[in-house]
Amino acid sequence: MSESAQGLALVISAPSGAGKSTLVRRLLQAYPRFTFSVSCTTRAPRQGERDGREYHFLSRQRFEELIRQGSFAEWAEVHGNLYGTPLESVEAILGRGGHIVFDIDVQGARQLRSTLSGGVFVFILPPSVQELENRLAGRGSDADSIIARRLEDARKELEEAPAFDYWIVNDDLDRAFQELCCVYRAETCRSKRNPELHERLLRGAVDSS
Amino acid sequence: MSESAQGLALVISAPSGAGKSTLVRRLLQAYPRFTFSVSCTTRAPRQGERDGREYHFLSRQRFEELIRQGSFAEWAEVHGNLYGTPLESVEAILGRGGHIVFDIDVQGARQLRSTLSGGVFVFILPPSVQELENRLAGRGSDADSIIARRLEDARKELEEAPAFDYWIVNDDLDRAFQELCCVYRAETCRSKRNPELHERLLRGAVDSS
Repeated sequence: MSESAQGLALVISAPSGAGKSTLVRRLLQAYPRFTFSVSCTTRAPRQGERDGREYHFLSRQRFEELIRQGSFAEWAEVHGNLYGTPLESVEAILGRGGHIVFDIDVQGARQLRSTLSGGVFVFILPPSVQELENRLAGRGSDADSIIARRLEDARKELEEAPAFDYWIVNDDLDRAFQELCCVYRAETCRSKRNPELHERLLRGAVDSS
Repeated sequence: MSESAQGLALVISAPSGAGKSTLVRRLLQAYPRFTFSVSCTTRAPRQGERDGREYHFLSRQRFEELIRQGSFAEWAEVHGNLYGTPLESVEAILGRGGHIVFDIDVQGARQLRSTLSGGVFVFILPPSVQELENRLAGRGSDADSIIARRLEDARKELEEAPAFDYWIVNDDLDRAFQELCCVYRAETCRSKRNPELHERLLRGAVDSS
């Protein structure tokens, strides 16, 4: 039962510095069933970008219209540009059995919790606040005030951890990755995600591959 | 976070012939944190058995008293003897962080569902009813009528599958075992099972080992 009929939306979030992006990259490499959902943005296309491939490029007016219509699973404004994940394309991918992983900040995860039913929410924890401080400080030659603000942000993000289904402590990348894979595989075995399997079994053969 | 503070009760059930006992044995070998709970029975001790080690040996009168008091997580009568798992010892093991695995039939699992809060219920599925029939028939030189009855029982047991949290198809023993391990590891990462972890993290170091 490693493959479930209905796709899985795996939402992975963490305070910055906890190492979530590395984990997400490894997950995507290990499981080709994960699909990217093409996001919308109001920023101008860069050279080589094609509408509908990297992004759906929209005017701000059109984007704001879609926000009002509740068409986004989540959206955010970053450096003056709007970015969003269209709910419709997420549902289309899940409906045909594809999995989607969201590598997203805590605010984005909060939005997804209210728009995505059946999503699985994983929070990556740093081994300690001290270690998080070391990692944030070690990123470069940033001023102490910037590091202090990042750490303050991270503390606030940590407070959101109880809203997530799973916690994975990233003190050892390999073990954290194994645990993430286990969360994914266990979730595909959930009976509620495989309503047709039981019927197929009672009828005849189960093809679990 | 491979080790959670509160122990886990993993209940594994299946129609007969689905191969659950082999999976449970491998799980116990792989994870020494699983503990056995000593059951109660009304049958007489066999040579070499000691009260409190293999079983708590009770009179039928005492056993029936305990049933009336709701002291069993589950109990059953088998070949005229009563067998039961004392709820108190299960709670003691879980409370000190031990895990318990139940290798139990569908009826026993149904009882555990009402007595064990927070238990994780896994159903092992045969690849198909046809395959189950082959396995049950292949066990020896049993009469056709016995095989037919076993298959009828198995079909009834299969109908209980929707009450379980997870389904694992045992068409490939190694893969089924991996999935069972993933269910176990994922469940230890559940935020609701680690209420202290978050607090420890905000306070200081997290020891996830």
